[in-house]
Amino acid sequence: MIDSLVIGGREISSRLFLGTGKFPSNRLIPEVVAASGVQVVTVALRRVDLDFEEENIAAYVPGDCILMPNTSGARNAEEAVRIARLAKAAGCGNWVKIEVITDNRYLLPDNYETIKATEILAAEGFTVLPYMSPDLMAAKRLAEAGAAAVMPLGAPIGSNRGLRTKEMIRILIEEISLPVIVDAGIGRPSEAAAAMEMGAAAVLVNTAIATASDPVAMARAFGRAVEAGRTAYLAGPGETRQYASASSPLTGFLRDE
Amino acid sequence: MIDSLVIGGREISSRLFLGTGKFPSNRLIPEVVAASGVQVVTVALRRVDLDFEEENIAAYVPGDCILMPNTSGARNAEEAVRIARLAKAAGCGNWVKIEVITDNRYLLPDNYETIKATEILAAEGFTVLPYMSPDLMAAKRLAEAGAAAVMPLGAPIGSNRGLRTKEMIRILIEEISLPVIVDAGIGRPSEAAAAMEMGAAAVLVNTAIATASDPVAMARAFGRAVEAGRTAYLAGPGETRQYASASSPLTGFLRDE
Amino acid sequence: MIDSLVIGGREISSRLFLGTGKFPSNRLIPEVVAASGVQVVTVALRRVDLDFEEENIAAYVPGDCILMPNTSGARNAEEAVRIARLAKAAGCGNWVKIEVITDNRYLLPDNYETIKATEILAAEGFTVLPYMSPDLMAAKRLAEAGAAAVMPLGAPIGSNRGLRTKEMIRILIEEISLPVIVDAGIGRPSEAAAAMEMGAAAVLVNTAIATASDPVAMARAFGRAVEAGRTAYLAGPGETRQYASASSPLTGFLRDE
Amino acid sequence: MIDSLVIGGREISSRLFLGTGKFPSNRLIPEVVAASGVQVVTVALRRVDLDFEEENIAAYVPGDCILMPNTSGARNAEEAVRIARLAKAAGCGNWVKIEVITDNRYLLPDNYETIKATEILAAEGFTVLPYMSPDLMAAKRLAEAGAAAVMPLGAPIGSNRGLRTKEMIRILIEEISLPVIVDAGIGRPSEAAAAMEMGAAAVLVNTAIATASDPVAMARAFGRAVEAGRTAYLAGPGETRQYASASSPLTGFLRDE
Repeated sequence: MIDSLVIGGREISSRLFLGTGKFPSNRLIPEVVAASGVQVVTVALRRVDLDFEEENIAAYVPGDCILMPNTSGARNAEEAVRIARLAKAAGCGNWVKIEVITDNRYLLPDNYETIKATEILAAEGFTVLPYMSPDLMAAKRLAEAGAAAVMPLGAPIGSNRGLRTKEMIRILIEEISLPVIVDAGIGRPSEAAAAMEMGAAAVLVNTAIATASDPVAMARAFGRAVEAGRTAYLAGPGETRQYASASSPLTGFLRDE
Repeated sequence: MIDSLVIGGREISSRLFLGTGKFPSNRLIPEVVAASGVQVVTVALRRVDLDFEEENIAAYVPGDCILMPNTSGARNAEEAVRIARLAKAAGCGNWVKIEVITDNRYLLPDNYETIKATEILAAEGFTVLPYMSPDLMAAKRLAEAGAAAVMPLGAPIGSNRGLRTKEMIRILIEEISLPVIVDAGIGRPSEAAAAMEMGAAAVLVNTAIATASDPVAMARAFGRAVEAGRTAYLAGPGETRQYASASSPLTGFLRDE
Repeated sequence: MIDSLVIGGREISSRLFLGTGKFPSNRLIPEVVAASGVQVVTVALRRVDLDFEEENIAAYVPGDCILMPNTSGARNAEEAVRIARLAKAAGCGNWVKIEVITDNRYLLPDNYETIKATEILAAEGFTVLPYMSPDLMAAKRLAEAGAAAVMPLGAPIGSNRGLRTKEMIRILIEEISLPVIVDAGIGRPSEAAAAMEMGAAAVLVNTAIATASDPVAMARAFGRAVEAGRTAYLAGPGETRQYASASSPLTGFLRDE
Repeated sequence: MIDSLVIGGREISSRLFLGTGKFPSNRLIPEVVAASGVQVVTVALRRVDLDFEEENIAAYVPGDCILMPNTSGARNAEEAVRIARLAKAAGCGNWVKIEVITDNRYLLPDNYETIKATEILAAEGFTVLPYMSPDLMAAKRLAEAGAAAVMPLGAPIGSNRGLRTKEMIRILIEEISLPVIVDAGIGRPSEAAAAMEMGAAAVLVNTAIATASDPVAMARAFGRAVEAGRTAYLAGPGETRQYASASSPLTGFLRDE
């Protein structure tokens, strides 16, 4: 229904990406994936550790999804690189979402270390999607370093606070030629739709779905909202006006005659 | 997929209502209706005048829709009542959207005259949906007067300015037992979704669809967004937090071992 | 420093009005008045009852202030009129702030009854300042009824939620020739300044000052902020731009030479 | 009236800093300084070039102000360092505002090069105030590099768009022990007050004052607003509530008796 997004040579039809870290049970994941239509799913490496069968979140991700291991837990570029290589060696493919975080309260990413990790991993052939603080110059450096997309935060991870960095994300979308994927903070489908209406290439959602009373229904809502936002972006919204503009003939029926 | 809305004894499956006054051509209407899935369509009476075949907008509204004539052009209760009766006599059914407007710049409704018209028409058996300025006490009086729903504005008609009256609409939804349908001002699908997430029963959109570069695609986007918003409302969104909340295990892979 | 506001023939130099209902002790009032520079002070009638000396809030209002009794407790026009007459008879002067409220949760005003009370009291020579829900047509009727100003709410009384009804207040300021005084909801000096920058004639504040840890300092802050907002309104703010506009010469020192 | 801010060992009583690049005439500067009470004034180096008497903006800055040359025009750390040294050699003192900008559309700063310049100049004994994109990890590195304060942008330079990065600035204020001075984007006194209410140490304003119809009056408004915001921050604002909270006794006069 909507146009595909191409990242790392893969054609992706759903512009909703799913994070998996917060679900009450991994058993929900297949249903959530089905309801929302997502194709790209991120998992923390520890959970793909094949030794612990019951914790193996990857086993719950449907086979036709693109698995995107993240480097959660990395505190610098070196650790992120090490985790990415381990994930690849474990058979998780060559996509990686880089997360380098040392801030324990807001979990804000370290753009500087993220750029370093991106450069190394892109050179090794990974399809690198870095989680970042929405800063234009850092996004330009990520692009030069070989990132396949940039993933600026809308608000702190898990906060459900929405598009608080809207102004900076709008500028990234305008100034960067890479796909801009809003990651973190989106708490409502309306916020996901708003990101897409601005021209975001995709959004990644985890907490808002996983902490809903009914995660499967919420996943469906996000799938629809992302589709709506992308469709609206392509449909070319009309202008916003200060004054009213009549929808119906005001001189009307009674006075015309 | 979502729960039905019942108004005036009719079960309505789509919570997107369509206004028709602004389309470049009436010929677009059937396609817009099909793409969005709307079932309730409002038309200005002058356009249902059967004498002028080419202006007869009602002829373009698919037969399975609920036709809701509006009293556009009425400047007081008496005129609104007169238009409603004429519409009924012309075979438009017994639904009516009351619009009483004397403000030519912002097209803001006259709650006082609207309450009077509602009382008269409800007593005559009309299913009355009044367009109103979002004021709680006026909404309570409309309920007492027999309104089937209340239709507060989000922003001036045709302005595409969004949910500027959000605070007051939220209070209406909380305090009034009638369905609250946000009418006027909604300019983007994300705003329609946000209204639904707050608990609005439905939204009415015209300008935002009609003035899009591709009205049919925009109609589809609004249909999806309204569904997403309603689904999210029912799914029970999670909490918003000030601080971050880790989606992935931060102690992580590397340090655990 | 700023231009005077004239209401009911009185020249008022401070555009901050003070509500008195929420102070931990009435003894704070003279200091709050002095720190903020307010000249118009509203009191609930019960508190001006001269029989109970210690509850007599009016005794704490400096003599050079304009005392504006309010009709708090009135549930309809008749009660508001009765309270206003009693206040006048008790020597409180002929200013009255009309409050007619039956909504116990949000304390939202009843515009319809307020218009009726305004009409009666204005005809009796009162200087009438009605508290209202921000609805343009109701404001027009209040003007016709003889109000000296209109006092739309920014958010529910005591909520400190700010200018939630900004869009509607902006329209009132543009369309009504009476002074528009924002009453209720203002929780921070920045919000008072924003109301003044839009062209509000004054703001009335109570809860935000009275519930601060240091009410006297907060009163001073509000006095300054209202002055700042009015001054900015008169100074003619520059345009808002989408793109940056260099403050300093970018071609710069180094490359010029 | 408000508490002093100490930066680089200097006690500063006004928390409004002034930029000078946009005034229609330098002759306005002394009057603007007097009206606003500012003590810290930033100038682009080119304008302090003593060879060109009429362009010598520094000559218009009152002698009791702290002159803060900026490195406007620098495109990397090396250039910023060179400009700072030249300014010092020219007698401009040892304060410097670092600006490193290569983005010509939004004039967004380059945090990476800014950190490098800060490190070098702080080691040389400069009091370094870096203009930055509001990113927590970059702010932490600036602190480690020896910055005396950080100056995150509220919106692009000269845009008058306000506190668009509010969420990130709030986090900086909470997490960084240096003074946080909001620089760029502030377009109205109310926005300056809001920044101060959040706990910003100061704000720097140029375009909003320089492009007002009456720059001197606007400067006075900003001075007052910054004072109001700081006072409010110190006064301990009350809570924000969802529901109303009566300011006056609702049971009232009439029903009590």
